[in-house]
Amino acid sequence: MSLPTTKEILNFNDIIVALATPPGKGAIAVIRLSGINVIDLVNGVFKGCDLCKKKTHTIHFGLILDGNTVLDEVLVSIFRAPKSFTHEDSVEISCHGSQFITKSVIQLLIRKGARMAMPGEFTKRAFLNGRFDLTQAEAVSDLIAANSAITHDLAIKQMRGGFSSLIKKLRSEVISFASLLELELDFSEEDVKFVNRDNMNMMLNDLLNYINNLLEGFKLGNVIKTGIPIVITGKPNSGKSTLLNTLLNEEKAIVSSIPGTTRDIIEDKITIDGIEFRFIDTAGLRSNSIDEIEMIGMSKTKEYLKKAFSVICLFDLSNETLDSINDYLKEMEILNTPVIKVGNKVDIANHFLVNELKNSDFIFISAFKKQNIDLLKSKLIEYVNKEKIECLDSVMINSRHYESLYKCKVSLERTLTNSRNNVYAEFLVQDVKLTLHHLGTITGEITTNDLLDNLFSKFCIGK
Amino acid sequence: MSLPTTKEILNFNDIIVALATPPGKGAIAVIRLSGINVIDLVNGVFKGCDLCKKKTHTIHFGLILDGNTVLDEVLVSIFRAPKSFTHEDSVEISCHGSQFITKSVIQLLIRKGARMAMPGEFTKRAFLNGRFDLTQAEAVSDLIAANSAITHDLAIKQMRGGFSSLIKKLRSEVISFASLLELELDFSEEDVKFVNRDNMNMMLNDLLNYINNLLEGFKLGNVIKTGIPIVITGKPNSGKSTLLNTLLNEEKAIVSSIPGTTRDIIEDKITIDGIEFRFIDTAGLRSNSIDEIEMIGMSKTKEYLKKAFSVICLFDLSNETLDSINDYLKEMEILNTPVIKVGNKVDIANHFLVNELKNSDFIFISAFKKQNIDLLKSKLIEYVNKEKIECLDSVMINSRHYESLYKCKVSLERTLTNSRNNVYAEFLVQDVKLTLHHLGTITGEITTNDLLDNLFSKFCIGK
Repeated sequence: MSLPTTKEILNFNDIIVALATPPGKGAIAVIRLSGINVIDLVNGVFKGCDLCKKKTHTIHFGLILDGNTVLDEVLVSIFRAPKSFTHEDSVEISCHGSQFITKSVIQLLIRKGARMAMPGEFTKRAFLNGRFDLTQAEAVSDLIAANSAITHDLAIKQMRGGFSSLIKKLRSEVISFASLLELELDFSEEDVKFVNRDNMNMMLNDLLNYINNLLEGFKLGNVIKTGIPIVITGKPNSGKSTLLNTLLNEEKAIVSSIPGTTRDIIEDKITIDGIEFRFIDTAGLRSNSIDEIEMIGMSKTKEYLKKAFSVICLFDLSNETLDSINDYLKEMEILNTPVIKVGNKVDIANHFLVNELKNSDFIFISAFKKQNIDLLKSKLIEYVNKEKIECLDSVMINSRHYESLYKCKVSLERTLTNSRNNVYAEFLVQDVKLTLHHLGTITGEITTNDLLDNLFSKFCIGK
Repeated sequence: MSLPTTKEILNFNDIIVALATPPGKGAIAVIRLSGINVIDLVNGVFKGCDLCKKKTHTIHFGLILDGNTVLDEVLVSIFRAPKSFTHEDSVEISCHGSQFITKSVIQLLIRKGARMAMPGEFTKRAFLNGRFDLTQAEAVSDLIAANSAITHDLAIKQMRGGFSSLIKKLRSEVISFASLLELELDFSEEDVKFVNRDNMNMMLNDLLNYINNLLEGFKLGNVIKTGIPIVITGKPNSGKSTLLNTLLNEEKAIVSSIPGTTRDIIEDKITIDGIEFRFIDTAGLRSNSIDEIEMIGMSKTKEYLKKAFSVICLFDLSNETLDSINDYLKEMEILNTPVIKVGNKVDIANHFLVNELKNSDFIFISAFKKQNIDLLKSKLIEYVNKEKIECLDSVMINSRHYESLYKCKVSLERTLTNSRNNVYAEFLVQDVKLTLHHLGTITGEITTNDLLDNLFSKFCIGK
């Protein structure tokens, strides 16, 4: 484990200050400070009581004075080390939510010796003081950015150490494996190197499976974070836009429209049962097209279809035949993306067609009359749950973690290949060390200043 | 004094909740609750300690749980009646600053029995519970809206009771006067009504002077609140726009541009020495114009000139004569607005002209080269200070107060006229009662529900 550098330790001697609440007008705003002697500093501009004599986790009413000028009536909260977010002495000043006041108070505190905090610096101090590991620190910023129940849940679990514990488990297994290697090393002079190779290889295999599962979870985690992409496809006039509007209308509050960058592709987000879906409306596919521009559009559509989590194939039941439907579905099969088959305009449908489709897994809706939309929604949720979205503990949402884990996988795979080829333990050890190194960077047991600076700078100021 | 109505008292039995910090992403957000049993309510969704057993003004770390789902790790601050803003039991929940979290927590609290607070309802409860009078309550919202040192100072002084004490003083004098009247009433049967009339009239006169001074203060207060209007005038090419830009560049942070609704009139705000100025750039005035549209434009400019706090007359020193300058200034005199005479382009000026103007109170600047801009600024501040802006205690910024005081003035003037005409004391009493009524509405000793509802609805939610 690499300790924080001297420079970092020295930095701890100063007091950082920042506005912790969003900018703008509100009833109250909170200014946060942390560092040695911070209570003394705030006491110097506070009139009401002697803050230096107050216990941790207490609140005090009084005035913030700049000379004789009253800047505001405030509540000051005292947190004494180590019982604070940063594990340092900390103060929160709750003042009236005017930008003029917060600016004036922060400027005053800076004149008295504090300095503006860098983005994420409070959390960085908390991490460096051992309050939590890196994955937990990172979850704080994910938590603030979360905008659906599921991303929120992922972030909370990660912040509370869910993901760290999985990594810790992995790490302890790699260490067990290393001890096996050590055993072999101890006997290497006697050239008894194959004692446990089968055992070792099995163990490596298990580790790789475990890592692969975690890596799979990232694909899902990333999808959850950006909204699960569902492509709506279908021939012109099958009612794609009507369906999109119907889905959106029912969840007006959290709808956002992103005009597509490519022609005719429109994205819209809605949250269903706390899971964010990203619906992508595309132009229909026609196998017999010869128009060149349409071909380009279609190839774009195909790209979207491949990347989709699943595809809603929408058919106009008043205007299709069983053959035309089957032709369309056959084309979809090539893409290898799960398809949800939806028959639209059920209210004016060709009854013979409906009868023929009855026993296939079609959902019959009317987008216009808003019939069976709930059924379609629960089908979507069902698809997501099928993909094990529920075992959120193993879902990774951070690309830094993915990168490190991927490196672990590469070095462990090399170990396995080498081990199978009866390479000496001395050489295997190098890759195992590398694996432990990459695991350490995930939780922050191994850190570099560059990593930390880069990581915490993505936070908002005041956190 | 009218007590709060039964309905209002009943309303106090419920618990109100609101987001107290500005919406948006931030490190933390604060949710505020107030009402009987509020600690019990929050305790029901909090895991960490038993909040019901905790003392006032203490902070507690724990989780907010919706069933088994962790919504967030939070800090909960406990305020026990009457030691809180509302004088009721209150709780502040400091959570991570995500809109998803604040929304979820507030929804949970509402499911548990709280209700969304109306705008200003926390302050309304504080007022109804006797924490402060109406002028102080109103100052809270002015304080949040304040965006310059001087408006902030006015609001802080009013919040801390500065204006209330002036009104209280006035009220006690009116009551003294009423007691004089009473004396006369006691002797009225003996028809000795003139005993103190001269005395009374003098007293009424003093009261009217006092009220007139306060009313004068409103004109100033209003000007301070919206920015002190300074009109920049001058012939085309005298450098008006360059001057405006130079003034603005130096204070980029707090500049706002308001495109004028009338042609060629542009407004911009800058804060100099904590005082907000509103600069109005106008088309120049020419006495010999015959163009009809230009005449309309000029008449608009003249309106602005009349309403201005002062006028900056800008002259191009490289292109004017003493006569042309004097002609222009003569036209300005008619408007009766203080004029600040500024010679621009001093770097390329006609030296004879500069010499001739030396002993007049001209300021010589170069807007383009940013020379002597500070001198111009201090001249502006000087003008403001001349207008007694410094005796801020008597400056009124609230139009509701102005209206009530104006009504006091009218009824006291009637009293004085009647008293001089030897009207019987019985009749004078009516107007004195009316005066006391209007004074009472300012501080809230006399209130109606309509007044309160209207007043607090201007607040932001959570305050």
